[in-house]
Amino acid sequence: MESHKVAILGATGYAGIELVRLVLAHPRLELAHATSEQYVGKTLGTVYPFLGRHGAVELVALDPARAAGDAEIVFASLPHGTSATTIAELVKRRVPKVVDLSADFRLRHREVFERTYEVSHPATELLGRAVFGLTEIHRPRIAAAGLVANPGCYPTGALLGILPLAKPELAIESVIVDAKSGASGAGRSAKTDLLFCEVDENLRAYQIGTHRHAPEIEQELAHACGGAAPPVFFVPHLIPVVRGILSTIYVRCRLPSAERVAELFEEAYAGCAFIDLRHDRGVPELRDVRGTNRCAIGWHVDRRAGLIVVVTVIDNLLKGAAGQAVQNLNVMMGWEEDLGLDTLALVP
Amino acid sequence: MESHKVAILGATGYAGIELVRLVLAHPRLELAHATSEQYVGKTLGTVYPFLGRHGAVELVALDPARAAGDAEIVFASLPHGTSATTIAELVKRRVPKVVDLSADFRLRHREVFERTYEVSHPATELLGRAVFGLTEIHRPRIAAAGLVANPGCYPTGALLGILPLAKPELAIESVIVDAKSGASGAGRSAKTDLLFCEVDENLRAYQIGTHRHAPEIEQELAHACGGAAPPVFFVPHLIPVVRGILSTIYVRCRLPSAERVAELFEEAYAGCAFIDLRHDRGVPELRDVRGTNRCAIGWHVDRRAGLIVVVTVIDNLLKGAAGQAVQNLNVMMGWEEDLGLDTLALVP
Amino acid sequence: MESHKVAILGATGYAGIELVRLVLAHPRLELAHATSEQYVGKTLGTVYPFLGRHGAVELVALDPARAAGDAEIVFASLPHGTSATTIAELVKRRVPKVVDLSADFRLRHREVFERTYEVSHPATELLGRAVFGLTEIHRPRIAAAGLVANPGCYPTGALLGILPLAKPELAIESVIVDAKSGASGAGRSAKTDLLFCEVDENLRAYQIGTHRHAPEIEQELAHACGGAAPPVFFVPHLIPVVRGILSTIYVRCRLPSAERVAELFEEAYAGCAFIDLRHDRGVPELRDVRGTNRCAIGWHVDRRAGLIVVVTVIDNLLKGAAGQAVQNLNVMMGWEEDLGLDTLALVP
Amino acid sequence: MESHKVAILGATGYAGIELVRLVLAHPRLELAHATSEQYVGKTLGTVYPFLGRHGAVELVALDPARAAGDAEIVFASLPHGTSATTIAELVKRRVPKVVDLSADFRLRHREVFERTYEVSHPATELLGRAVFGLTEIHRPRIAAAGLVANPGCYPTGALLGILPLAKPELAIESVIVDAKSGASGAGRSAKTDLLFCEVDENLRAYQIGTHRHAPEIEQELAHACGGAAPPVFFVPHLIPVVRGILSTIYVRCRLPSAERVAELFEEAYAGCAFIDLRHDRGVPELRDVRGTNRCAIGWHVDRRAGLIVVVTVIDNLLKGAAGQAVQNLNVMMGWEEDLGLDTLALVP
Repeated sequence: MESHKVAILGATGYAGIELVRLVLAHPRLELAHATSEQYVGKTLGTVYPFLGRHGAVELVALDPARAAGDAEIVFASLPHGTSATTIAELVKRRVPKVVDLSADFRLRHREVFERTYEVSHPATELLGRAVFGLTEIHRPRIAAAGLVANPGCYPTGALLGILPLAKPELAIESVIVDAKSGASGAGRSAKTDLLFCEVDENLRAYQIGTHRHAPEIEQELAHACGGAAPPVFFVPHLIPVVRGILSTIYVRCRLPSAERVAELFEEAYAGCAFIDLRHDRGVPELRDVRGTNRCAIGWHVDRRAGLIVVVTVIDNLLKGAAGQAVQNLNVMMGWEEDLGLDTLALVP
Repeated sequence: MESHKVAILGATGYAGIELVRLVLAHPRLELAHATSEQYVGKTLGTVYPFLGRHGAVELVALDPARAAGDAEIVFASLPHGTSATTIAELVKRRVPKVVDLSADFRLRHREVFERTYEVSHPATELLGRAVFGLTEIHRPRIAAAGLVANPGCYPTGALLGILPLAKPELAIESVIVDAKSGASGAGRSAKTDLLFCEVDENLRAYQIGTHRHAPEIEQELAHACGGAAPPVFFVPHLIPVVRGILSTIYVRCRLPSAERVAELFEEAYAGCAFIDLRHDRGVPELRDVRGTNRCAIGWHVDRRAGLIVVVTVIDNLLKGAAGQAVQNLNVMMGWEEDLGLDTLALVP
Repeated sequence: MESHKVAILGATGYAGIELVRLVLAHPRLELAHATSEQYVGKTLGTVYPFLGRHGAVELVALDPARAAGDAEIVFASLPHGTSATTIAELVKRRVPKVVDLSADFRLRHREVFERTYEVSHPATELLGRAVFGLTEIHRPRIAAAGLVANPGCYPTGALLGILPLAKPELAIESVIVDAKSGASGAGRSAKTDLLFCEVDENLRAYQIGTHRHAPEIEQELAHACGGAAPPVFFVPHLIPVVRGILSTIYVRCRLPSAERVAELFEEAYAGCAFIDLRHDRGVPELRDVRGTNRCAIGWHVDRRAGLIVVVTVIDNLLKGAAGQAVQNLNVMMGWEEDLGLDTLALVP
Repeated sequence: MESHKVAILGATGYAGIELVRLVLAHPRLELAHATSEQYVGKTLGTVYPFLGRHGAVELVALDPARAAGDAEIVFASLPHGTSATTIAELVKRRVPKVVDLSADFRLRHREVFERTYEVSHPATELLGRAVFGLTEIHRPRIAAAGLVANPGCYPTGALLGILPLAKPELAIESVIVDAKSGASGAGRSAKTDLLFCEVDENLRAYQIGTHRHAPEIEQELAHACGGAAPPVFFVPHLIPVVRGILSTIYVRCRLPSAERVAELFEEAYAGCAFIDLRHDRGVPELRDVRGTNRCAIGWHVDRRAGLIVVVTVIDNLLKGAAGQAVQNLNVMMGWEEDLGLDTLALVP
């Protein structure tokens, strides 16, 4: 079986090293190129000793031309704003398959991007070409894409819970997403408020109603609703775990029967290897998906409150980042969607 | 200064040992009697070596007559259902001041209690005498009471955030309480799902829309609204911390100005030693109140979503249990409300 | 490729469910039989929802005859004392390959076993047949064995660090093993002292100098030393992590050169897929091996103190239990030693 | 009761904010001056909202002259190397009572300091005046001192366990200190390896045999032994808890009877309010002292191994830093030694 060369741009952050781990374990991929800002000249194994004999690849500085020469597949896990410039270079050099894990190509409209991220977009010409990589929803377009914008971690967990309900018959009135994320979602930067002593035995809500992932959720919900979408109110919380996002989603709508709700989820995810619908098996817990690319979904229809409550769990570094990136690549290459991703959670 | 004798019934559970700690540190209280189911005949210090030389009190079996003989103040931290029977005995023996930390006297209406807890109430004649001990709200009635029903931990965190908004001018339409609690809220019983390996690096929602604390929240909200109350939808989550509850409360209502919201909170809690209104000092974090009897409250008015979002944090073992019990006793005795409770959080 | 039927006895404890996970992922094994004490009649997936569609196997009661009929390979993860009785039945029924994860066949001498575990041994006739399954040390005998006694988690971490130094030239005088283990090592039983609130933000030493794993360490060290062995002093500590054992080992001996120490480790583990010798790559951390069957080993020679300090890390549920069990099976079957076990750690 | 003005230099680090908390709660102290490097111009309450109404003090830049003007008592929690320069200024300005929490005055010999910290000492003239503030050991000299060098956190936990055994009759041969510390010991600086995701579910040994606290332990042990001291081998470990150090200490010596060992500890700590000798009450756990200035000590005499094993626990921010600083001040001022420090641990 032919093996394909991969470059990982930004290989030593948390999403980056997860990409490294997945690429090393993938039967059709070969890690040919890895970049780092801080560790140029060192091997991956020096920075991450757990890689052992798999850590021989030397880290190089970011250089799109060199990456394009070394690899036919590029995963970019770079800071937003700067990612788009690099991606534009890669596209110009005709790298066949690019998955961008930054926010740069997720928002279809330049003005929404610029308002949200407060920078001007350096490669607006590509906004129309990038496909939003929520695999279960946009699979056919991803299969045909050369550039995929991998969704944010929060939007992945939220949208997989909401979109099956975005039907005229339910006439969604409003959505509240109360999301709880582990600290790895904030990345591996040395910030005081991410220190162990600030996160452990603590819990905080942040950016109430103002988080940058909200427009991403609204864009996709509007798309699913065929235009006008209900308002989504998004509140992220930082919890003292390393990995995982649990989203408690309150959907106010015209309530169908419990059976119809189950049917809507089943229809939406028929044949989806990574979706675990809970039906009668209880509400999913965070650990059920840790170390996997899965999203487990439970729901509760409450007539008294007039709500459908959906609970979704993902591993933010996998289905919320590196795992979905590889899943998207698998679709882009025409491979089995779960190739190299078919693992069970590490429980306990 | 005269010192008053105290009995603690159920002294070795998590709320019980917190009561012990507070009573030992209180300048006007003396621990005269402590009961335990499992450890009769041992000293407190054998079960909890951290007590050191303060642990000399010997644990005795539950016996209301003996407790009534030994003490003039009783804190009962017993399982619900059985607590009421004990309390009835204490009242019969004219123990002057009793604070019950169980659920048995929190719900004013027998049928609500019996539907919620699925047992018949053994002392309905006392339901009318017990005062609901949310101190900031019912202070004058507590001051005159002989029997106080200490509120549940979740209702304390929720109600302190909601009640200031229960005004005709806001016409609350619905309330969602998304609460996150540390594991000590579930008590010290040996259950598999409370093991370290089941809670750590995990997160779960439970009893969605069916938790027993919901009727307690609704009762008090109805009371504040003068009768008919908006529906409250309550979802508790178990997070991997020992102490603390953070409640994210979504109040759908007719939105007043931000200034008016601040004013409502200020009016509600004028002169309240334990309430920390955040105004411009950011949303409170769990750790801000750990080890204290305080409740910190922040809020955000969102016109686009039509919501007031309130975030409250408490230490579930203090303001959510033992601390509020002592606060209530202070009020009952006519002492300074923060006597023996004026501590700062243990940060980090 | 032919697939072999496996029975897992005691499938719902922490080591048991890890065996389930490994067997499900192993290319040459098929899970045919799984027992449980508490959950008979339920499927594995009901007890552990994370298994998803892989959880269809129904749990049955312990019945060696039925297990022997259903499977040609048996992993037994049963309480010590009772395990031996079951194993004896399996051997009588000529089950070709049995790996016992209990302590019952680890100690070669009945009297040492009975003194240590304070029960009489129910199957002493098998003590001579069982091979101590520290794979790297006893590989040839394991290859020929029908019954392997899988080592304890602490002995695995300790012995892999000590045995390479058990040479006449070093003349070891004494060994201190200061071991730190995650809570999953204590199993999934509902005990108060394993509750989240008792373990989190805490640390305790226990059974100082009296732990049952000490004789296992001494037996193997004596074996390596060819008889008389230096005393081993063993102190386990419980730390607030789920998985992993870090052992800090203080070996007082005639100090060779640092080069010679490195050489001894290299010689001992030449060609061992799961051993990661650190040399200049720093002392290993617990997380370097989490989720893997690896043992990472670092060391420091201190002339002033007259000590070689060795630090080893393992995942107690993998190299310390289920992983090494599968490794042993691979050797017993003549397969690649790392078949189904070649994973990278989940970092972060 | 007259209240004394206190300056805290370096008030926003972890030891600093703990000093703030203690000074605010101390009946004879008044916080008059607090410095910060990063937060000049902000109030303490802005940086640490948990302080609530107690956080009004404004943070100023480091200026010894101003501190000397504002306060008669100074606690300095500054980086080593720079602390000594500031202290020299304070002494020159005749500030009556100074407690230095840095390492600058702990080592009596300039050359040991300079070899250990690899900087030249800026105020060697004060080395002879500073008293090593291990209160239980040097109480009389502390009572007479104007400048106290507060011990390091690791040396405090180690020395309190070793020194009672430093008697000719035991003829200590060697000491190994295997210490496990929570992350707050490393301070509040934004370093990658202190991030939540690097510390949680992890465990690491570091600076094996080379940590800077080893010379401090050896100096005091030599002092107690009257000159020549046995070698001390010190290995610190970082564990995923916020507060606390548990030291497992292996003392190889001529073994006295168990009764004699108990007697030695009793004699050493007769009348010491903060020492909790365990005798038959089991080995102390970390949480037994969290939030207190106590040190709990347990021991085990092992004839087979020829060792006395001592286990000590302290809260590194209290007995290991701010608490002992206040304890030392109490002694310097002639107050009750536990004034403002008489709290019980926060359990659970």
